[in-house]
Amino acid sequence: MQTSVAIIGAGPAGLLLGHILHQAGVPFVILERQSREYVLGRIRAGVLEQGSVDIVTELGLDANLRARGLEHGGIYLQYEGERRHIDFRELVGRTVTVYGQQALVTDMLAEHERIGSTIVFEAADAAPHGFDGGDPVVVYTHEGVVHELHCEFIVGADGYHGVCRPSIPAAQLHVLERGYPFGWLGILADVPPSTDDLIYALHPDGFAMHSMRSLQVSRLYLQVDPDESIDDWSDARIWEALQTRLGVPGWTLTEGAITEKSITPMRSFVTSTLASGRLFLVGDAGHIVPPTGAKGLNSAIADVALLGRAILEHRAGDDAPLAGYSDRALSRQWKVQHFSQWMTEMLHVHREVPDASARAFRYRSQVGQLEYVTESVAARQSLAEQYAGLPF
Amino acid sequence: MQTSVAIIGAGPAGLLLGHILHQAGVPFVILERQSREYVLGRIRAGVLEQGSVDIVTELGLDANLRARGLEHGGIYLQYEGERRHIDFRELVGRTVTVYGQQALVTDMLAEHERIGSTIVFEAADAAPHGFDGGDPVVVYTHEGVVHELHCEFIVGADGYHGVCRPSIPAAQLHVLERGYPFGWLGILADVPPSTDDLIYALHPDGFAMHSMRSLQVSRLYLQVDPDESIDDWSDARIWEALQTRLGVPGWTLTEGAITEKSITPMRSFVTSTLASGRLFLVGDAGHIVPPTGAKGLNSAIADVALLGRAILEHRAGDDAPLAGYSDRALSRQWKVQHFSQWMTEMLHVHREVPDASARAFRYRSQVGQLEYVTESVAARQSLAEQYAGLPF
Repeated sequence: MQTSVAIIGAGPAGLLLGHILHQAGVPFVILERQSREYVLGRIRAGVLEQGSVDIVTELGLDANLRARGLEHGGIYLQYEGERRHIDFRELVGRTVTVYGQQALVTDMLAEHERIGSTIVFEAADAAPHGFDGGDPVVVYTHEGVVHELHCEFIVGADGYHGVCRPSIPAAQLHVLERGYPFGWLGILADVPPSTDDLIYALHPDGFAMHSMRSLQVSRLYLQVDPDESIDDWSDARIWEALQTRLGVPGWTLTEGAITEKSITPMRSFVTSTLASGRLFLVGDAGHIVPPTGAKGLNSAIADVALLGRAILEHRAGDDAPLAGYSDRALSRQWKVQHFSQWMTEMLHVHREVPDASARAFRYRSQVGQLEYVTESVAARQSLAEQYAGLPF
Repeated sequence: MQTSVAIIGAGPAGLLLGHILHQAGVPFVILERQSREYVLGRIRAGVLEQGSVDIVTELGLDANLRARGLEHGGIYLQYEGERRHIDFRELVGRTVTVYGQQALVTDMLAEHERIGSTIVFEAADAAPHGFDGGDPVVVYTHEGVVHELHCEFIVGADGYHGVCRPSIPAAQLHVLERGYPFGWLGILADVPPSTDDLIYALHPDGFAMHSMRSLQVSRLYLQVDPDESIDDWSDARIWEALQTRLGVPGWTLTEGAITEKSITPMRSFVTSTLASGRLFLVGDAGHIVPPTGAKGLNSAIADVALLGRAILEHRAGDDAPLAGYSDRALSRQWKVQHFSQWMTEMLHVHREVPDASARAFRYRSQVGQLEYVTESVAARQSLAEQYAGLPF
């Protein structure tokens, strides 16, 4: 098989890149290790930056997003029993949209199927080869038969555990990462959200967050230790902790049936190069952020927008954007990494600090930070422009 | 002896409070443990916020400051060989003024002597008593004779090592503090500054800073480990490190004779209450910041401005400002603590991080932060408004 761009991974990044290439008439093939059903069932992030919504709209993929996405003009920051609204519309004239990654994947896959894109599900043992020379090829196995997909470019949209990043020669690849002493216990609950905008709360017991999936489904999070077991968290205990940490006078958190619960650890991870010859990494294959600030999916979309443009410019005769892809994508990514880390450290209780006085200092200085951020127009604008999304 | 306000400490905070009280006709006495010569010789901070300059001006103490202070409309942030100007005038319409604390103390002391204020130097073993009741008194020894200074209020302007803070009952006093794995090697050099505005530089070898004392005297700093000995830093080694860390193409750092050099560790410290009955703490007696951001002296001045107003309002019959002094001063102080910590962590190399990948992550994310801060108008405004000084 022969194509122009071989995309490994049919997550949101791979599917979106396919649509960008399709719109410009560039041939592509998407290889996906999992089944179609598995891909459609993956529950992930749910907050889209303005720029992410814009690109989905430009590609004509926004019908369901417009109908069912929840546009938000701000967030709440909560601390010491006070809940303060950060008004993105007023501050920077932009918004975010709550729309599940799963729904976006469903929309993009349906459109690929309508236009007849080649997506090979259950493509096993895919491996990129020859990307340092003139004949890149992806070798993979499908229904027991080994295939070769020859192409001009290989795109690794295969996530953190994918094959593409480890295929880059070790001498080119430096991995920078940090862990956090925090985990997120996340639930989905069949209950209308008790808030109009997302709430991020610092509480002495730990961070809590009230997000949502739709007008009928709430998404809520609790800071826990990363090694805690979900078995120790009964539904009753979860709601009790949410009531305590999110509670403010005169407001009611309505409880409902918990339909999913899990604990996820938190990390930051950046690969020092996102390109090696004709192989390019996008999204989680190249970088991971902690979830505070909702930058994971949006970073993948930013990479894809940049790489898609660079591939089209290459075909128009200009190689510079493709040669500069890794540096440009990483320049944005490091700002996003800093923002994610900043939000995380401002809002989580640093139980890991061994000295009680230093721990109390840390908490009180976070309260000082939150007071400053919520009182200062400049600080609110800075938060808003980063949350609603830096330019792609 | 009898007065209205007994001020312990003839540093900038105590002397300034004396002038505020004098202007309003409130009797006061200042007790100082050290000699007059010692007080005049103490070299400390040198950057005044706009609000600090304003209060000195309102009190008519600004003649020398106007003549010899260096007004600065911004700072430089430097990283990865780029030096970017943050223009405070343009961003927030405010400035800072470089004027040594020692010069300010000299001016204020001269004026106290001109107006005949009572300042007792070499007042030994001063101890505040009875401040939880109606008869506060400071007992001290002068020239071998024990004295009692009866008063309405006692103000502890006696610094971190002073007697006032430990006089507050332990049950009322909670100390929050954190250390930093950084020290500052500071020098004074007889050479005109090589820069118009202060330079704060992040370099892989560590933080460096180019400040100044006057048009003839430069003040420069290097990040070192807090336990390093100054004996290991020859003048030649210091200049070499400064040249490396501050160097950018097309700019020359002019060297000169080093007249003073020392290494200072760095810490954050806040006392949970700044008031106990009729005893009030101001400045370093209540809180310490790391020097990055130049907030130590300015925080003391902010406390004094607030406490001075509160004492005058008490005399006019309103006790609320005095009752609220500690909370209000601490509310501002915690924002300042956060800013000082933010500047410190953004600009210092975190050699203490044991894991090489996490250390590299940290450094690269600081570069991302600096890129964001220098590129974003909102972030620059936020830095400028905090550096030029939050409202008193």
